[in-house]
Amino acid sequence: MRKEEFSRPIGMKNVKITDEFWNREQELVRTEVIPYQWEALNDRVEGASPSFCMHNFKAAGKLMRDKKSQGNSFIPPKYTFRGFETLPDDPEHPDEDKFYGFVFQDTDFSKWVEAVGYSLVVHPDPELERIADGAIDIVCAAQLENGYLDTYYIINGMDRAFTNLRDHHELYCLGHLIEGAVSYYEGTGKDKLLKAAMRFADYCADYFGEEDGKCKGYPGHEIAEMALARLYEVTGVEKYLKLSEFFINQRGQAPNYFEEEQKKRIEFDGGKYTAPRMRADANWFERNPYYYHQAHKPVRQQDEAVGHAVRAVYLYSGMADIARITQDESLYEACRKLWDNIVNEKLYITGGIGGTHMGEAFSFPYDLPNDTAYSETCAAIGLVFFARRMLEISPESRFGDVMELSLYNTVLAGMALDGKSFFYVNPLEMDPTACDRDERKLHVKPIRQKWFGCACCPPNIARTLSSLSMYAYTESEDTLYAHLYVGSEVTKRFGERVDFAGAKDGNSSLGEGTSVNLKFSSELPWAGKAYVKISGNGARGKLAFRIPGWSRVSDIVIKTQDKEYELTVTEGALSVNGEKHLSENWILVDCKSGVSVCLKSDYLFIDNSWLDAEISFDFDMQVEILAANNNVRECAGKVAVKRGPITYCMEEADNGKNLQLLYVDTTAADKISVEEDHEFGHKTVSISVPGKRESLDSAETGLYKSALARNVFADCTLKFIPYYAWNNRGVGEMAVWVKRY
Amino acid sequence: MRKEEFSRPIGMKNVKITDEFWNREQELVRTEVIPYQWEALNDRVEGASPSFCMHNFKAAGKLMRDKKSQGNSFIPPKYTFRGFETLPDDPEHPDEDKFYGFVFQDTDFSKWVEAVGYSLVVHPDPELERIADGAIDIVCAAQLENGYLDTYYIINGMDRAFTNLRDHHELYCLGHLIEGAVSYYEGTGKDKLLKAAMRFADYCADYFGEEDGKCKGYPGHEIAEMALARLYEVTGVEKYLKLSEFFINQRGQAPNYFEEEQKKRIEFDGGKYTAPRMRADANWFERNPYYYHQAHKPVRQQDEAVGHAVRAVYLYSGMADIARITQDESLYEACRKLWDNIVNEKLYITGGIGGTHMGEAFSFPYDLPNDTAYSETCAAIGLVFFARRMLEISPESRFGDVMELSLYNTVLAGMALDGKSFFYVNPLEMDPTACDRDERKLHVKPIRQKWFGCACCPPNIARTLSSLSMYAYTESEDTLYAHLYVGSEVTKRFGERVDFAGAKDGNSSLGEGTSVNLKFSSELPWAGKAYVKISGNGARGKLAFRIPGWSRVSDIVIKTQDKEYELTVTEGALSVNGEKHLSENWILVDCKSGVSVCLKSDYLFIDNSWLDAEISFDFDMQVEILAANNNVRECAGKVAVKRGPITYCMEEADNGKNLQLLYVDTTAADKISVEEDHEFGHKTVSISVPGKRESLDSAETGLYKSALARNVFADCTLKFIPYYAWNNRGVGEMAVWVKRY
Repeated sequence: MRKEEFSRPIGMKNVKITDEFWNREQELVRTEVIPYQWEALNDRVEGASPSFCMHNFKAAGKLMRDKKSQGNSFIPPKYTFRGFETLPDDPEHPDEDKFYGFVFQDTDFSKWVEAVGYSLVVHPDPELERIADGAIDIVCAAQLENGYLDTYYIINGMDRAFTNLRDHHELYCLGHLIEGAVSYYEGTGKDKLLKAAMRFADYCADYFGEEDGKCKGYPGHEIAEMALARLYEVTGVEKYLKLSEFFINQRGQAPNYFEEEQKKRIEFDGGKYTAPRMRADANWFERNPYYYHQAHKPVRQQDEAVGHAVRAVYLYSGMADIARITQDESLYEACRKLWDNIVNEKLYITGGIGGTHMGEAFSFPYDLPNDTAYSETCAAIGLVFFARRMLEISPESRFGDVMELSLYNTVLAGMALDGKSFFYVNPLEMDPTACDRDERKLHVKPIRQKWFGCACCPPNIARTLSSLSMYAYTESEDTLYAHLYVGSEVTKRFGERVDFAGAKDGNSSLGEGTSVNLKFSSELPWAGKAYVKISGNGARGKLAFRIPGWSRVSDIVIKTQDKEYELTVTEGALSVNGEKHLSENWILVDCKSGVSVCLKSDYLFIDNSWLDAEISFDFDMQVEILAANNNVRECAGKVAVKRGPITYCMEEADNGKNLQLLYVDTTAADKISVEEDHEFGHKTVSISVPGKRESLDSAETGLYKSALARNVFADCTLKFIPYYAWNNRGVGEMAVWVKRY
Repeated sequence: MRKEEFSRPIGMKNVKITDEFWNREQELVRTEVIPYQWEALNDRVEGASPSFCMHNFKAAGKLMRDKKSQGNSFIPPKYTFRGFETLPDDPEHPDEDKFYGFVFQDTDFSKWVEAVGYSLVVHPDPELERIADGAIDIVCAAQLENGYLDTYYIINGMDRAFTNLRDHHELYCLGHLIEGAVSYYEGTGKDKLLKAAMRFADYCADYFGEEDGKCKGYPGHEIAEMALARLYEVTGVEKYLKLSEFFINQRGQAPNYFEEEQKKRIEFDGGKYTAPRMRADANWFERNPYYYHQAHKPVRQQDEAVGHAVRAVYLYSGMADIARITQDESLYEACRKLWDNIVNEKLYITGGIGGTHMGEAFSFPYDLPNDTAYSETCAAIGLVFFARRMLEISPESRFGDVMELSLYNTVLAGMALDGKSFFYVNPLEMDPTACDRDERKLHVKPIRQKWFGCACCPPNIARTLSSLSMYAYTESEDTLYAHLYVGSEVTKRFGERVDFAGAKDGNSSLGEGTSVNLKFSSELPWAGKAYVKISGNGARGKLAFRIPGWSRVSDIVIKTQDKEYELTVTEGALSVNGEKHLSENWILVDCKSGVSVCLKSDYLFIDNSWLDAEISFDFDMQVEILAANNNVRECAGKVAVKRGPITYCMEEADNGKNLQLLYVDTTAADKISVEEDHEFGHKTVSISVPGKRESLDSAETGLYKSALARNVFADCTLKFIPYYAWNNRGVGEMAVWVKRY
């Protein structure tokens, strides 16, 4: 870990996204998702499971006014079979004093307000800001005087607060509240919610910690770790950093806190609300309950990504934050091991993670089922978080490759092209009949849903897409890192201390000549060409560009006012004007002007005193026919199609029913063709692959027949479309992995 | 339906099984399973889930003595998470007055005593009979004076008896009690249990029926239908037949009884013990609750096998019984449609049925997953029941083919080769890691279990194997049908009325010359040769032999005292001494002695006045490489190996780990070889098939790589062993379906 390589997301105010591809997505979030979410938070969406989120804040606030809340004794609510969810006896008439929904329902608001904060930076909207201010008033009215803010316990009884960190989500609510509050503060400068979040964080910092008498617990669902790190970086208040470190260091220590906590609950209520004893035929998940929470061992000893996938990557993101802030080498080492484990054994070709529905979790190594994949949208988002934090510590293209893969594929697939419906689960193969009638696939929905009772994914997509610039660019004092190629206008001030994202004032007092303006244009993801026009007044500094892992040969041309340099990157090596350089040392390409370049971990660094200049990129975007490591049983004998950052799939709409009859003819790979396609309401690229179609057996064939007389295999062309665009033309079969002929 | 074709199982006393293959299995049942089961019924098996079966009978009997039972008011027991199962608070000290275990726990006894009854016919055993008599005394002591006999309600309160036919199992208990009682009566001549069963049946006949004021319900779990038919055929008491008919005819009529019953329960207790309301995302099974019980429509309108597979085939067996006894054409038509549906769309190549764990049920057409197969042992047994009843009505080899397939493969696979452990679920592909860590496969056990809380399968295997002769042979007045080729000695009396199995006296008063003795010897399932030596004194009658569907060319030689006839059956056509006959008419092959033969539905009939004669069979037992109808998605691109009635599989023990790397080379099918194998403690035949082994990718390969550079495919030999023998050499991978190269 080298501090001089650290970078932080660029302040959103310093970026304006102009990209055709991503603008569309951000506009969807702004015009469809954020308004729809607000309706959902207020239970005004016909046919969707109610959120009860704003209801709960109002109920808690009313109780506060009535002064009944602080002393009330905990009355356990009647959970439904869906888990820790409380539903009104009469769905039409919820009791206005009661808590409903999941225990973590408060976070629906926090995620929404986080997306609103980002959106307001990019697109000021007084009406939206007015609505958000009103919502914040309701939320703040629910906060107890001591700072505690989780409506589940405020309403049901504070005497059981923090007695079930394992299953209830108070610290998860804290984390999301902080994320939302920071975003809204950065987007609007208004600090009412930030102060409320700080008060709740202060309360927790008093309650939890190493000191004698303080609670030794930590979140059952992680996020507070990274949120507290962010709060520390915005406010500079050290105790938030300490609390985050405590949560991370305490996790998985013996005796296991969750076990101790459960013993106490059993003492307290005779185990009435406690899980039943272990069965003789308990499965792995039951025998290893703390893997689910990544609390099976201390985090520095963890080297396999396990348990609930969202929790896992949220934890790893927090670990990376703390590793960077405190320069903790052993924590960083754990992050790298966990990263490698995900990428080497547990990552879908769509950038999704979490193979199993059971516990929404990472499965065992190489278990990446396609038709029963969980691959939760939120888990892919969490992987994006983790990837960016790894990039912040060390700019290595392999982190960017995964960040890009997840963003362009599973994260986008989570939302319909019209922004009106969402996938929680992102299978790589789908047969609509099986979703309904095969118990292994009941978690797989055949079509995106309007909303979910557990509505984590839609607002998570919203907050991620609306803050895209924080993933596209990070900066250090002397370097701007471009991780993604997104059409945008960026201002970079060199020589300015970079502590945290977005807290800098847009009008710096630094003198002229310290900043450069960059105009990026990009044909990604449909073609490999990108272009940057740079205007500067001689400011000296480095620009670093990620060379994507999918590009075998990358040609880069740098034009300064008087010179032109031709660079080529192939297999980790840089050639300058035809001369190959294998080391990572700086190469002075122009003594006079002092331009020098180097390639480190597939980032191309260009150091210059920037005047007007242009850089053009030509990345090699061939269609790739990929196989999985054949330890992945589910993909044995199959291939997938990828081009640039985009993973492809076949749909029934293009290829007919019974996708199991189709084979990719890998011997005819030279006949693959690529076409621009406007079927999805925006430009995409579809791919035609030579294939074979086996004739379908009739019912009269019976179930079993001699295999020696083979069916007819007819030549055909298989049409592949981008995975993120699937399921936008009605319900039908889909497959990413196709048998090879 | 032609009454003259009807046949009934031959009385067990008229058969002595001498077969090397089947004797071994029957001896296992007698020496291992039956004694072990008795220990299990009495909760004396270390490490196994307690049955509580005899405990419950004793508790009920004690309550009877204490005169507390008849008026006690129903106290709902606390069910555990495993469903309708009650467990003691302190497992070491169950309360001697309480009911424990599943609601259907009484049937553990009934199935055991049924197996005991069959076993005593074959192998008299005074000590076993003494134990059984003692158990029967305990059971009978629990019966109420009015005849009711289900310990769950006797102990918990009779006021709720018959109020939950859908989920509780009183009529299922009745059915099994009858089956056990009839078997014990036939095996020993003792009628104490038979009388108890009749009293319970009488009680039910008073309670249920078409008449005004009688309950219009029917069993939630079928079996009473076929049991009552059997009771009728043993006793001649018509009301048992009527009750069975009523249950069958009433099933699925509108308004749906189970729905009405549920409404009444809600009226009664406010829905306290009633399922929650339907969720918005309810799956097919929840939206169609009565498919599970085959009560979604009247049985004569059913043409797709649906729902809980055991219940389904038990119902269809009862329907076939009633169709035969009452010569009900429309009911028979339904049976044929349901049969065809199973065989054409829902039958595993191992003779298993019920593809889905959800509801232990038939899945949708062509959904036959291998690694998540449910394929419950009991369902295969139920299919054997159904098949025999279809044969009783119409001797068609296709019914016998399935009966044979299920018996030799899934039924036998249900029990370890040492008779000491059992599979409930019979997958066609198994990876031990996945059983533990993949939620889709948690129902699949990586190794056979000693016993189950819901212990239906082990005793079901016991009762089926110990009554094998009832499946091998059926008879009508003038014909003996040999459905299976099992070494055995059989006595057939021609001209005697055949009403029911086993009730005939072994010493008939019919004159000499009416009976023949047959000595079967058979090399099945390892070779296609079988042989019958017949001794008779001129008794005239027909012998009918099944020509197995797997034999492409079957050569049969009939030797009478002075002549020899050579017969060949190929593709449904019979040749006699080289002359082909395409019709099903009788062919007089010898005018003088009057021998005539015919082939109908692949049964070879031989009519003769039997003196000493010999018939030898030579069935073609080639190795078959089979493909599934490619509507079966899970088997697309794969093949399976079968030889004669035996389905084969690959195991890790022979082929190493990572079976996903193996391919069958179908172009080298001529190099397949067959070897006698003694690895499993008895003679088997293993098969060597030319194949290819793909080199295993290393961890360094990463997860995804170009598919154009293919891995090395090395020639190899794949060893296949009989499916029934799998999982007897420790835990390891197994696969029936293998990719074709």
